[in-house]
Formats: sequence, structure tokens, C-alpha cells
Amino acid sequence: MYRSRQTENLDKNVLEYLSSLDDDINLFYYDIVGTQAHCIMLNKIGILNHQELSRLLSSLSELKDNCIDQAKVRKILSSDSSEDIHEQIEALVTQSVGLEVGGKMHTGRSRNDQVALDIIMKARDDLLVISNLITNLLRSLITRSKEYQTTIVSLYTHLQQAQIGTFSHYLLSYSYSLLRDLERFNMIFDRINKSPLGACAIGGTSIPIDRKYTASLLGFDGLVENSIDATSSRDVIIEFLSSHAILMTSLSRIAEDFIIWSTSEFNYIELADKYSSTSSVMPQKKNPDPLEILRSHSSIVTGNLLSALTIIKSLPTGYSRDLQNIKPLLWKSTAIVTNSLIIMVGIIDTFKVNKNIALEQANKSYAVSLDIAEQLVIKYNIPFRQAHKLVGRLVQYAIKNNDNISLKDIPKEELSKSLDSINIHIDIDDLHTIVRETISENSIYLRKSTGSPNPNEQKKMLESIEHLLADTENILSKRTNMVDQAFKNLQQLVIEKCKLDK
Amino acid sequence: MYRSRQTENLDKNVLEYLSSLDDDINLFYYDIVGTQAHCIMLNKIGILNHQELSRLLSSLSELKDNCIDQAKVRKILSSDSSEDIHEQIEALVTQSVGLEVGGKMHTGRSRNDQVALDIIMKARDDLLVISNLITNLLRSLITRSKEYQTTIVSLYTHLQQAQIGTFSHYLLSYSYSLLRDLERFNMIFDRINKSPLGACAIGGTSIPIDRKYTASLLGFDGLVENSIDATSSRDVIIEFLSSHAILMTSLSRIAEDFIIWSTSEFNYIELADKYSSTSSVMPQKKNPDPLEILRSHSSIVTGNLLSALTIIKSLPTGYSRDLQNIKPLLWKSTAIVTNSLIIMVGIIDTFKVNKNIALEQANKSYAVSLDIAEQLVIKYNIPFRQAHKLVGRLVQYAIKNNDNISLKDIPKEELSKSLDSINIHIDIDDLHTIVRETISENSIYLRKSTGSPNPNEQKKMLESIEHLLADTENILSKRTNMVDQAFKNLQQLVIEKCKLDK
Amino acid sequence: MYRSRQTENLDKNVLEYLSSLDDDINLFYYDIVGTQAHCIMLNKIGILNHQELSRLLSSLSELKDNCIDQAKVRKILSSDSSEDIHEQIEALVTQSVGLEVGGKMHTGRSRNDQVALDIIMKARDDLLVISNLITNLLRSLITRSKEYQTTIVSLYTHLQQAQIGTFSHYLLSYSYSLLRDLERFNMIFDRINKSPLGACAIGGTSIPIDRKYTASLLGFDGLVENSIDATSSRDVIIEFLSSHAILMTSLSRIAEDFIIWSTSEFNYIELADKYSSTSSVMPQKKNPDPLEILRSHSSIVTGNLLSALTIIKSLPTGYSRDLQNIKPLLWKSTAIVTNSLIIMVGIIDTFKVNKNIALEQANKSYAVSLDIAEQLVIKYNIPFRQAHKLVGRLVQYAIKNNDNISLKDIPKEELSKSLDSINIHIDIDDLHTIVRETISENSIYLRKSTGSPNPNEQKKMLESIEHLLADTENILSKRTNMVDQAFKNLQQLVIEKCKLDK
Amino acid sequence: MYRSRQTENLDKNVLEYLSSLDDDINLFYYDIVGTQAHCIMLNKIGILNHQELSRLLSSLSELKDNCIDQAKVRKILSSDSSEDIHEQIEALVTQSVGLEVGGKMHTGRSRNDQVALDIIMKARDDLLVISNLITNLLRSLITRSKEYQTTIVSLYTHLQQAQIGTFSHYLLSYSYSLLRDLERFNMIFDRINKSPLGACAIGGTSIPIDRKYTASLLGFDGLVENSIDATSSRDVIIEFLSSHAILMTSLSRIAEDFIIWSTSEFNYIELADKYSSTSSVMPQKKNPDPLEILRSHSSIVTGNLLSALTIIKSLPTGYSRDLQNIKPLLWKSTAIVTNSLIIMVGIIDTFKVNKNIALEQANKSYAVSLDIAEQLVIKYNIPFRQAHKLVGRLVQYAIKNNDNISLKDIPKEELSKSLDSINIHIDIDDLHTIVRETISENSIYLRKSTGSPNPNEQKKMLESIEHLLADTENILSKRTNMVDQAFKNLQQLVIEKCKLDK
Repeated sequence: MYRSRQTENLDKNVLEYLSSLDDDINLFYYDIVGTQAHCIMLNKIGILNHQELSRLLSSLSELKDNCIDQAKVRKILSSDSSEDIHEQIEALVTQSVGLEVGGKMHTGRSRNDQVALDIIMKARDDLLVISNLITNLLRSLITRSKEYQTTIVSLYTHLQQAQIGTFSHYLLSYSYSLLRDLERFNMIFDRINKSPLGACAIGGTSIPIDRKYTASLLGFDGLVENSIDATSSRDVIIEFLSSHAILMTSLSRIAEDFIIWSTSEFNYIELADKYSSTSSVMPQKKNPDPLEILRSHSSIVTGNLLSALTIIKSLPTGYSRDLQNIKPLLWKSTAIVTNSLIIMVGIIDTFKVNKNIALEQANKSYAVSLDIAEQLVIKYNIPFRQAHKLVGRLVQYAIKNNDNISLKDIPKEELSKSLDSINIHIDIDDLHTIVRETISENSIYLRKSTGSPNPNEQKKMLESIEHLLADTENILSKRTNMVDQAFKNLQQLVIEKCKLDK
Repeated sequence: MYRSRQTENLDKNVLEYLSSLDDDINLFYYDIVGTQAHCIMLNKIGILNHQELSRLLSSLSELKDNCIDQAKVRKILSSDSSEDIHEQIEALVTQSVGLEVGGKMHTGRSRNDQVALDIIMKARDDLLVISNLITNLLRSLITRSKEYQTTIVSLYTHLQQAQIGTFSHYLLSYSYSLLRDLERFNMIFDRINKSPLGACAIGGTSIPIDRKYTASLLGFDGLVENSIDATSSRDVIIEFLSSHAILMTSLSRIAEDFIIWSTSEFNYIELADKYSSTSSVMPQKKNPDPLEILRSHSSIVTGNLLSALTIIKSLPTGYSRDLQNIKPLLWKSTAIVTNSLIIMVGIIDTFKVNKNIALEQANKSYAVSLDIAEQLVIKYNIPFRQAHKLVGRLVQYAIKNNDNISLKDIPKEELSKSLDSINIHIDIDDLHTIVRETISENSIYLRKSTGSPNPNEQKKMLESIEHLLADTENILSKRTNMVDQAFKNLQQLVIEKCKLDK
Repeated sequence: MYRSRQTENLDKNVLEYLSSLDDDINLFYYDIVGTQAHCIMLNKIGILNHQELSRLLSSLSELKDNCIDQAKVRKILSSDSSEDIHEQIEALVTQSVGLEVGGKMHTGRSRNDQVALDIIMKARDDLLVISNLITNLLRSLITRSKEYQTTIVSLYTHLQQAQIGTFSHYLLSYSYSLLRDLERFNMIFDRINKSPLGACAIGGTSIPIDRKYTASLLGFDGLVENSIDATSSRDVIIEFLSSHAILMTSLSRIAEDFIIWSTSEFNYIELADKYSSTSSVMPQKKNPDPLEILRSHSSIVTGNLLSALTIIKSLPTGYSRDLQNIKPLLWKSTAIVTNSLIIMVGIIDTFKVNKNIALEQANKSYAVSLDIAEQLVIKYNIPFRQAHKLVGRLVQYAIKNNDNISLKDIPKEELSKSLDSINIHIDIDDLHTIVRETISENSIYLRKSTGSPNPNEQKKMLESIEHLLADTENILSKRTNMVDQAFKNLQQLVIEKCKLDK
Repeated sequence: MYRSRQTENLDKNVLEYLSSLDDDINLFYYDIVGTQAHCIMLNKIGILNHQELSRLLSSLSELKDNCIDQAKVRKILSSDSSEDIHEQIEALVTQSVGLEVGGKMHTGRSRNDQVALDIIMKARDDLLVISNLITNLLRSLITRSKEYQTTIVSLYTHLQQAQIGTFSHYLLSYSYSLLRDLERFNMIFDRINKSPLGACAIGGTSIPIDRKYTASLLGFDGLVENSIDATSSRDVIIEFLSSHAILMTSLSRIAEDFIIWSTSEFNYIELADKYSSTSSVMPQKKNPDPLEILRSHSSIVTGNLLSALTIIKSLPTGYSRDLQNIKPLLWKSTAIVTNSLIIMVGIIDTFKVNKNIALEQANKSYAVSLDIAEQLVIKYNIPFRQAHKLVGRLVQYAIKNNDNISLKDIPKEELSKSLDSINIHIDIDDLHTIVRETISENSIYLRKSTGSPNPNEQKKMLESIEHLLADTENILSKRTNMVDQAFKNLQQLVIEKCKLDK
């Protein structure tokens, strides 16, 4: 349709190579709505009369009605000559209302600002969906963490038992990380919620369009002002993609925890049957496949971020076709993030915790060592390094000479020997008492620092998380309503304008 | 020093393999300051008496005095047995003040929260430096764009001449993009300005430490509360790294523009001699090497982001040594960004614009085609698609049959023929006038849309950018002062506490 | 079908999340053929009797007949309960021949070795296709380079005119690089052409299967012997993916050259209309979109490589579901490479070279400077550094004082002044002659080094490339035949075995 | 030195920004040797007379003598004006022998071919070092696997116990993967062992140089013929980098296995003390830090590969300064790979296997399920799917109703019930016998397939690996000798030529 200068059509292979129609099904709805807003504005500034407007809006609305059926949209979009959805929609409308009217709809805009608009409208919706899913996941984590505020489990560093903690403490640590993800998405909204429409190809237009009016019809807060910037920049999309990658990377760590905890050897949790797979040949297998898929999805999302960054890298200013390849990367990543959040909510809601096994494992460990050393520091004001050395010696004794006995079972005589070798003056009975009493169940109550697994701290953190979450949900719901309302108003306006024709 | 349990020392190769001493020179200052704050807190809660505090602070201050000489620090840090800077500093202090006192400084903390603290303090400073450099670059762009508000230059899409614009319009488009970078860095500040100190290894401590007090001594707004999260998460660092990558990718596009514009074939700008290199064998060469280095640096920074994301990917919760490898990635990227911004300021400040060449090129182009089509739409209210077709035909004529004559030079007779073939009723004299008068110098004044290269729009955008920049500079300067003041206060406190011993 | 232990079915969302059916359409053919070979082997070792074999092979052949219609295969594969194609095919066959027979087909294998086999068979075919396409591209380059062996064009470093060359020299440099790509693909073949089938889940099988027999039925050279390695490793796939990325990166440089050369400012080449796009609003535009898509595709392929590497990174040994996500990465990259090669052949075959413009540009440049300096070195045996300095001075004079006159037009008097200032004893007439005669058209004949743009060297290189290419094509055709023959033989065997039942 | 045209020196910041002197210390040796070969050739073709040659070679040899002291080289290279090592070495030599002679050494070459030569000579050496280290690692794996050919351990898929295997089987699977890495490095050698010297800046030289002679002096097999290709391409370097990344990714999986196996919960192996770290506060910790560093190093090497690919992506043909940034990426990756191989050899040589714990864990598992099902298939020729179902039922019974009893302890009565429900005719006593006798220790001997953990197969695989390794070592040693000999011969020639002067 656009080829005024070329004398030869695009090679068929080339058309396929260039075509983004398959991916652009995601933009069908947004392209139509954006075009409706554009037409209403063209009417306002006198380019379209009422009748022309009415016919264009009706034709666009008819196309839009197909949105409920993806297969139908796919069929509508299949074309022998259009390179993309924007050309195809214009062709279909023009076919329906005639060139005299259809030939006016693209006045004062270009594919470059149009595609930037469509992408940003979809990204805005997706951002809100993702944000809401994160709040769902946070709700699940809060609910489950309430069940396990005193459930003893080892905390690991280097995948070695380090200190005693509570199961709730893990779930809350996930929550804080997710709250930061939520913050990130929230902050992107300000940059995403600006309209590029009206920047035309790169240098604006001589048609006296009203950019602010279309922006407000489509629920935007403002404009991407500079016309080069509006058509050529993709930094906000990259920022969105990088927030995807950060979130997925955090989720992949949760997945790794759960995969390890559900091995036969750890066995701290058991995934619900509906969240696990089996083998084609080994009937005993219960495999954490959804977690593995999620874990590997983080690599896909990271790869997509990188592809997008390097597509843009060293591109000259101004729209280049390279930018087209960013769209499917974004949509694929968004789909992955969306699905992964849904799956993670399901997994969190349904796994079982094997409390006894976790406790037993904690008791067999030497993770109370630091607690013992710190009790000595507090009671005797000895240097921490010496207390550390003393307990190190006890651990060595317990492991090497005695087949991994617990610290609490070290005979008094051995405690005494260790004291002598270190040359600290500590009452042997005190030491004996401390060593015997600093067991897993007690140790979490000894912890005094803000943010520790001490159940009192768990309670405080839960409250603070619930508070932060409620605030965010409030903002989110306002934004969601704001966008929804704009679209409803626009829809209402379209209906009114359509009536004018009849 | 820490090996209480192991009976054998680390293999020498292994020590080298594990050691981060070389990179950690970046943390030397922060580790000392953080430790001083920690000691002051330990005194407040009674673990250290005044004399012990005084001796520790003095010893630490002596070490800190070396900071002005990197070579000295490097020598101090060279060690046969320490794996990292934290161990080495504790060892040096203990050597100086004795185990009885030195053995107490690590009470109630661990390397895991300590390193998280050091990293975040350095990142906070770097973030402020980068932000300030971006404002410098914006000031340069603003200054240069004022010179070129009516300087005609072609705007390109697909590296083909698209529309007529002004040189200032390019510089302002860079500015808007950089303002978003500035926003991004600003928003990270909120997440970066929280203290992880006091989370200990992973599960907090039984020592009744005061986390909020150390946080406030070090100028933080609050805590990374949950002790697992504080030691194990690196999402904020990744967010910082991704902002590096987005900024560098934007800068690489500016570099690409300048490289292309300074070819002999485009020749729109000439880099200052001090910002260009030559060849070892070809005396005529004037190469844009700094821009090429900058362009390729964007790939390094992207690679670093990716490495960091995938180091963290599928790591179980809790500190793992893998995280150590993130530090040099961050510091390398920060150094690249910092240096690239400085270089870019110099380049922007000194390049020359070949106005005549740019104008001549614009005049030879067909970039006024859209303007002509739009004039016809405005005047005759014909469908844009038909106007588009008509002008397409004229371009074809001008190129194919006439050795690339200008549109304005197309003979009236040919205009008439074109009109006939398209079947639009337009007065031939009108058409002739429009085609003759829509030349480069006029076309930018025809542009009506908000954010176009029309000099009036340039003025408005300049004002809006200056306004936004002033606001940001204001915030930046408050934050910089806030952090500086905290460090000065702490320094004052250290001096006072040191005196107590004498 | 496989869930013997679990009591609950997979959640519907989870099934979708896990399912690879959509991507696995690529494996449909290979899975059936691989299963046929497996069944023939099971018959050979007595697990299947003739009748059972015959019924299984018939049922599989019926399924295979659908391969010609992708939509049909898609429908066959759509399923409410299968997670993947392997389960689905077994289910369909079992449905058709009954559990008594169908229940035997999976004896002595597992999905883990089965999927490894399918992937490798498809990769083997794709490798041969890609290799053949590279030879096509080389043939095109050879043909076009024969046209331009004396066509003068500037050679660029740093995108600045450096030396005079020929257009053919560029095309031959592309050819050498592509020959190395071809070598890389060839070498991967040895590692790809080994069968993993029979490794079962991870630890082999107690069924006395004959791995070498199935391998030979499927045209393999040998086995991936170790059963863990065969099911768990993906390094050969990564190697294949990295060869994709290297090739695409090389192609992206060619694309960049062509994009720059087809700007109005360079204008050395013009793409065929069918390989260029236009604008939706600017009728004058002729955009190199296919080249831009190709250029950005290199980032996609690089991102896919990275995703694959980091999916595998730190995965424990043994099949994990993460590996499933590597398949679509590979297939997407393969499709991109295949299509890009086809497009590049078309572009190479059809672009026009604007010989006069290239020559004119070369003449306006100072790219003969080095030639002049070298003539002085040869004639006077003066140090190159002094000759370099002298010519540098001449260039400076020509540019600064004289509005970019050509070196050949520098007045004798000025040559004389330059000689004096440098203090070299050269006959002024000699110098004058050398400067006047060393023009673009002559300079390429002055070049003496092996591999230079001297037309004699062009001829030699062309011959050597044609020779290397012929050798490779020979190997390729043998390998293609070998694989084809194996599949035909297997097909014949299947037909014979099927007859036994009737 | 090279700035003949520019009138102003490089800005100091820019010089630092551009300078590669810090990284180029790696090229010092190679640049000198390459220059010596170049000078000998210049003498051969008459550009240098004997005396000039002798003086240049002597001066270069003196510089080379500093190579044994890195600090000295670093000092020599520190410079206020040179951008790189090539300029600096030429400046130093010229300073020593005077411009009359020194000014001739750069005749007929350029920095572009010179740096390509230096990089490729270092890469060639590094490739041989890495290859030799891989053979060391293979020797270690072979030695250790001989110790554990009958040591029972579970094989895992999805990190769940899948089948019974032997410890040796794991080590051999690593070996096969490493053999493929070795193959990859070997094949790169052919492409790396070609000389780019003599391609000059991009278009060759008019000086009648003898490229083949310098190539042979430096031990090369041939030339990178085309002068554009020789200076502009980096695909072989990328191929080398991608082989680094593939190797490191494989090593990261071994690291992951060892990290998991050395947790308290698995406890299959114990790392030697000298290959493990401890905590600064938790005396009981024994952390696998070297393995974690190695695991994260794989991300660094992958990031470097990506940076290199995307530096090159869409770069126009011809040397651009961007390529400079590839050098440090390569050298960093090479250092990581080299060190990681050394560390891995140490770890493999020294870890202990807890045989009893591995056996006990295997016995507690249900990993014999498949073996039992296959015994039934073999004995009764029943469909595998039914056998699979029967055993699935038994596993369910053992887990759910009976607190995880072993399959062998399922009461006969329950076996009978299971048989009835499945409706297969199997003698109950047979079933009882099979279930009781198919225990871990027996199961590996039941395995019949080529490449299984059956100790007979272990033996065969060991032999095949030793055989393949011996072949490769043979090739490697020939190549190493070939390069060494060339350098020794060149050194001898230099000494002879130097004497001519005296």
C-alpha cells in the first residue's frame, strides 16, 4: 500500500522475513483503539468531518469485535502483501469505507509513532497485570509464613548449615525481595505512561494535530515530547525487560531452594502432586518440573534482555527496522513472568513442610555454634575471636573423634580440656549449661537483632510487609482504574460518534 | 584467622583463586568506616568499653589514612594468608591492638553483612557521581543545542533521509533520554540507601546490637530488615548494573551518530583533534577512536550485567561465594560509565558543525516530500493517501528520469501530468507554488505538532528540559550533602572517641 | 500415562507451563523414525515378535504420513493430558494397537535418551542445510566478485577512508570469513553424528538392547557411549548454537556495510527494489529493512546462545527439565540463520554497484597517501617514518589551506617547501611525478603483498576460494547422501517388516 | 608519534580512555618477537641492510630480556603519550637506534595487522596450555574413577534418585564431555595457526614484502590471505572464547554436583581441607568456596563471550577501535579457564568418597524400580507399561502406607494384591524373588546396555577414554614442539644476525 516509489514488489521470502504479523496479534486491540483516538482527534481539528469519523470508527469497532477470538484475528491478519498489522488494519478499513475516507485515517501520524504507541499501551497493561500477580504471590507468602513462625529449619550459607532459623524467615526474605520488584515496576509506570503518538515518522507533522488530546483519550499522563525521542528510543522498554529479568532471577532462587528442599536427602518440603511430574520409565519419581522450567525461564528472560540491549546498541538515532525485533522479546518475557508468577503462587499455596525432618536435621547440625560463642561473649565479655576458637575446637571434637555427636552431648571433661587449651577463664559448669541448653528450639529466641528469625521479629516483619503491601495495592488499584476508565470513556465516545452517522 | 575447624591451610593456588584482595582495594575505605561505626555501636551496647573503643578507632583511622595512596593500600592488602580485605583489616588491627581488644571488633557481625554494607556504601557514592556526571552532560547538550536551533539537518530513519529537522532537535532528543537515565538512578537511591549491617551471617545475632544506630551513623535511611535478605540478595546491585547498561546503550547510539556524521561522506560534524586518533601508517586519517571505544564499552557493560544476573540465577538462598564475583563486574561497569560520561562531555563541548554541508545535503534530499503532501491535505482536504501517492510519483520522476533533480525544480508540465494520473482536483498553480516553496529552510516552520523541530518547539523543549534538570540537581545536591554530612559527623565522633583514651 | 505414583493429576496451568508440544512439532518426524528404529531393534533382540513389530511400525507410519501437513500434525499433537510429543505419540500408537502391543514400544529406553536422539537428528539435518546455504552464498559472492575485480572503491578503517581497494576485495573478504564458518559447521558434524539412544533415563537398561544397531539404522557414525553423558550433556548443541552466533555476527557486519553503502551520502550500491521497503508516510524512502532485520537477528541468536549456556550453567548432572527450554532456542536460531542466508543470497545477487560514485569518492579522498609514502621508501630507501611525515604534511596542506584539493593537485612549490621542512633529499621532480601518478586507478596495481586488492591477487584468491569451496561441497554432498541413504534404507525396512503382518 | 595530520595532542582523559597499555602487557613478548621476524624479512627484501637489521634486532632483544620481570615491563610500558604497546615499543627502539634506522622497522606493516598477529600468537600458546591442562584433568578423572568402579551411588535426574549407578560412572561422564572440549580446542588450532602479518592497514602494501617468510619464521601453517579479512575479522577469537564458555559451563556442572554432594544432607564426598573455606563467625563451617568461585566464573566467561560477539555485531568491515576491547575479554577468560582447570585437578585428586553413606542412601531409595520392572519384562515378556504400573503401585504402597520401607521388604501378601489389581499373570514367588534380590549392589550388574554403569562397561569406557586421550596428547605434543621449535629457530637467527654488526 505504501510503495509509491518502488517499481517492484517485495520478494516473497523477504516479505516473510520482514513480517511481524504473527507477533503483532498482540497489538491488534491496541492498534485499533489507538487509531480510534487518533480519528476522534482528526475530527476535532477538522481533518475528518462527522460522517467520515463515524464511518471510520464503526469499521474499526467491527474489527475490534473480533478480539475475543484469537483464531479469527489471526485469519484477519493473514495477508499476502502487508508487512505488518498497521498496514493491514488500514487496508481492511479502507477496503470497507473506501479510499476517500479510509485514505484520511493515517493523516498526521506514521507507523513509527503508531507502533511506539501500541507497544507502550500493551506494556502498560502488562505492567499492571504483573504487579497484581506479585501482590498475589506476596499474599500467599504472608499466609504460609504465618503457619511457620516457630518452625525450626537450618539456614544455609554455601549450602552448608549455618545458623538455626525458622521456615517463616525464609518466606519473609522472599517477600522483601518481591516488594522491591513491585517498587521497580511501580516506578517504571511513570515513564511508561506517556504518549509518543503525534511524533510522526521522526520530525513531527505540519498537520495541526492535538497530541495532548489523544494522550488524554488513551489515559496517558503526558507526552514523550521530542519527536525523535518518541519514535527512536526504547530505553523504557529495556528498563521493563530488565525488571522482568531481575524478578525472574529472584524467583529462580526460590525455585532452587524448593528443588533442593524436596530432594530425598533434604526432604524439608513436599510439592503437591499437581505441581510435580514423573518419569516415563521410573515409577518412583516425583520430579519438581515446574520449578525447573521456572528456573530455566530466568535464562530466557535474561537472554531476551541482552538481545534487546544489543539490538539497540550502536544503532543510529531514528527508527530502524531492527527495533521490530524487540517486540517479540518483550512479549515472550512478559508471558514467562506472568505464567511463572501464577505457577509460583500455586506451588507456595500447596506445598507441605516436613517439620519433624527439618527439626531433626537442625538438631543434628552444628548450627548453634555461633549462638554458643555469643552466649560466652555476653556472659564473660571475652573477645568474640576466642569464643569462636573455643567452639571451633568443640565442633572439631564432636565431628572427628565422635561420629558427629551433638555439641550438647560433649562430655564435661572434654569441655574442660578445650577450655584449658584456649586459656580462657570460664566456669566449666556455666559452659556445660550453655552448651546443653543452646539447642535449636531455644536458639531462635536468643537472637536479639532486628530482622532475625526470633519469632517476635517474625511478627514485626509480617506486619511491616502487610503494611507496605497494602499501600502498594492501593496505588495499583488506582492506576488500574485510571487506565480502565479512560478506555471505557473512549469506548463510550466511539459509540456516540458512531451514532452521528445514522 | 577464621579456620577453627580445618586442620590444613588453603592450598596456595586456591588462595589465589579465591582471593578478592585485588578488587577489594575499592572497599578499603568503606570497610574501615563501616567498622568504625560498628565499634561505636558495640561501645554503646556495652561490648566495648571506652578504652577498647578508642584503641580500635585509632588503629582503624591509621589504616584509613593510607587511602590517599593507592599503592600503599595495595601493599597493606597484599597478604600471604587472608582471603579478603575484611579478614586482612581485622588481622592488621588485631596485630596492632592485641587479640584481647582486636578479637572483639567482629562481635555481632559477619563477613556476609559486612561485605553487603561495603558494597552498598560504595555503590551509593558511585550512584551520586554518575548522576552528577549526567547532569554535566545535560548542561553541555543544552548549551550546544542553543547554538543550533535553526541549523538545518536531515533527520534519518533506516539511515535514509526522512524529514528535515534541526541539529538542536537531535541534541534535545539525547537530553530527554538522559533525563530518564537520571530518573532511573534517582529511584535506585531509595533502595540503595538501606543498611544491611547487623544481619550477621544469615540469621542475625544474639548480641543485642542496635542496627538502626549504625545505619544512622553511616547516613542510611533505614534497614534491609530481614537478615536472610540482607546478606543473600543482590537485586539492587543488578538494578544498578542494568541502569548502567541502559545508559551506555543510549550513549552508544550517540556515538554511532557522531561516527557516521564525521565520515567524509556525511561530514556534518568534525571532532576536535584532541578527541580523535590517527593511523600508524596513513597520515591522512582522523579517526573517532574515543567514540568507538565508548560504543564497544556498551557491550562490556551489557556483558557484565548478564554475568551478574546469571551468577545469581538458581543460586540457593543464603550467601554463596559466587556473589564475590559480582563486585568487580559492578566496579568495572561503574568506571566505564563514569569515564564515558566525562569523554562524552568533552566531545559534545568541542565538535564543530558543518552547517553548510548539512544544509546542502538536506536540499539535495527528498525529505520535504511529507511536508508537501501534508500541505495538499491541509489546503484541499484530500485523503492523505492520495497526496502521498502524488508526491511519490513526483519523487520517482525526479530520481529516475532527471538525474536527481530537486522536487522544486520539477517542471509544471510534469506536475500537471502527475495530477492527471492520480485524478485529484488540485489547482496546478497551487501545486506548483507549494512544491517550489516547501524547501528545507521553510519546512521546519511548517511543522505544527508538539515536540517537532519547529524552532518554537525547540525553545519550549529547552525550557522544559532546563526545568526538569534544575529539579533533579536540587534533589541530587541534597542527597550528596546528606551522605557527606553523615560521614563528616562520624569522622568527628571517631576523633572524639579516640581522645577518650588519652 | 506415566503417573504411576502420583494420586492427583497435573494442574491445568502447570500442564501448559510444562508443555513443549507447541515447539515439539519440529520433532514429530524424528520421534517417529527413531521409534521405528527402536522397535526394529526390539524385534531383533526378541522383545517384540514379528507381528507386534509390524503393527507398531504400521501405526507409526500412519502417523508419519501426516508430516506433509503441519496443521494436521498440530491437531494430532493437541492433547489434554500429555506433557510432550513423546508421551503423545506413544499414547496414540497404544490407542491404535492396544496396550498389549503398544505397552512394549518404550521398553529399554526413556524420554531422556529419546529426546536427546530426536534433537540430534534434527540438528544433523539442519547443520547440512545451513552448510549448503553457506555454499550458495559463497557461489553468489564469487560470481559478483568476478564483476568487480578492477572496480575502485575506498577501503575503510574506523569508517574513514584508509586505502584504495577494489569492490571485489570486499566480497572476497566476506568469502574467507564464510569459509571458516563452513569449516566450523563441518567439524561439529563429527560430534553431532553420534547416537544417544539406549542410554535410557540416565543409567542404561537391563534389557539387552543393541545400541549400535539402532545407531546404524539411523545413519550415525557411533554412540554417545556413557549413559549419563548421553542424557545429560548439551555441549554439542551449545557448540552448534555458538556457530550460529558467529555466522550471524559476520553476516551482520556485511549488512552494516550495505546499509552504510546504500545511504544517499555514500551511495556506492543500490539494493534491488524487492529487497527494500518504504515508509507509510514518506514516499521518497527506500529503506534497507531486510538488512536491518538481519542485523538485529544477530542479537537474537546471540541472546539464544547465552540463554542456553546459562540454562545449563550450574545444573547438576542428569537430565533436568531445564534442558527442555534449550530446544526452542536452538530451533529459533536455526530458522533465523537459514532465512538470513537465503535473504543474503538474494541481496548479493541483485544489488547494483554505482561504480562512478565509488571512484569519484576514492579520487576525492587521501587514501593514496600510504602508497605515495611507500613509493618514496622504495625509490629513496628513506625511513618509512619520514616518508609518512612528509605525506602527512601534504595532506594537511591540501585539507586546511586549499579546500580539500587532491594530493595530485598540490603545486610543485608547495611540495618543495614540504621537502625542505622535513629535511629529506628527494628530487623534487621525482616527488612531483610520484604524487601526480599515484592516483586511485593506479594505486591498486602498485600493491605488492599477497592478499592485497591488486587485481592479480584478486584472481589468485578467487581461485583458492573456488578450490576450497569445491572440496567442502564434496564432503557435504557425501554426508548428505549418507544420512539420506540411511533414512531411505530404514524406510524400506519398515515397509518390509510391515508386510510380514499381512 | 603517528600524529602527522592533527595539530593538537590527545586530551589526557582521552588518552587514558583509549589506552590499552595496561592490558597489553600480555602482548609485550609477542610484539617484540613478531617485530624481529618482520625485520629479518625486511632485510631479506632489501629494505634493511645487515647493519640496520642487526641494530634493530639487538635493541628489540634488549627489550625482550625484561620479559622475566613483569614489574619492569609495566614500567617500560608506562608512557605519557603512547596509546598502545606497539607505538611504545617502536618509540623505545627508535630512541635507542635513532630515527634513521628505527624509522624503517614499521615499513610494510600497520598496527592493524601487527595487533592481529600478536593476539593470535598469544592465543595459540594459550590454546596449547589449556589443552594440556584438560589432559591433566582427564588423567585425574581416570585415576579416581579406577578407585570407584563398583562404588554404589544413586544417579539423579531432576535431582531425584533415578537409578542405581557407580561413582566411577559419574567421573567417566565428565571425561567424555572433557574429551569433546579437547576436540574443540584442537580444531580451532587449524584456524588460529595462520598469520595475518603483511595485510597492513587493510589494503596491503606496495612494499614487496614476503608474507610467507614471516609466517614460517613464526611457526605458522599459512596466511590469513585477504588483507581486509586479516585485519578486520575476529571470528576465530570468538570461536576460541565460545570454547572457553562451553568448557566452563561443563565444569560448573561438576562444581554443582560436588557442592550438593558435600552438603551435610547428601554427604557423599568430603573436600580436602585445603580446598575448602570456613566462616568468619561460624566455626563449624566447611564451605566449598573454590567450587562456588568456579561456578560463578562460568558466568563471567559467558558474559565475556557475549560482550565480544556484540562488540563485533554490526561493526562495518575494516579495523575499528572497538576491536581493542576484545583483547582483555579474551585474556581474562583464558586466565579463568586456566586457573579453574588447575583448581579442578586439585579438587578431583583430593576429595574423599563416603562410600557407606552413598550405599545406604541408595538402599533407602526406590531407584531399583526400573530394574525390577525390566526383570519382569525379560522374564514374562509382558508389556513394559504394565510392569511399570505394577512397580509404581508397589512404590506407592512402600511410601504411603509404610513409612518408606524398602521394596524388598514389601510383604508377599501385598505383592499378591498388587498383581491382582493390575491383572498380569506372574508367579507370585518369582515376583517375590525378583523384588527381594534386585537390590542396589546387584542392580548395576543387571544393566546390559553399552555405556551403562555395569562394572564391565566401566572398564571398557575407561579403556576407550585412555586410548582417545593418548591420541590427543600425541597431537598436542607435536604441535607444542612445532611452535617451540619455530621460536627457538627464530631466536637463533636473531643471535646470528646481531653478530653481523660486531
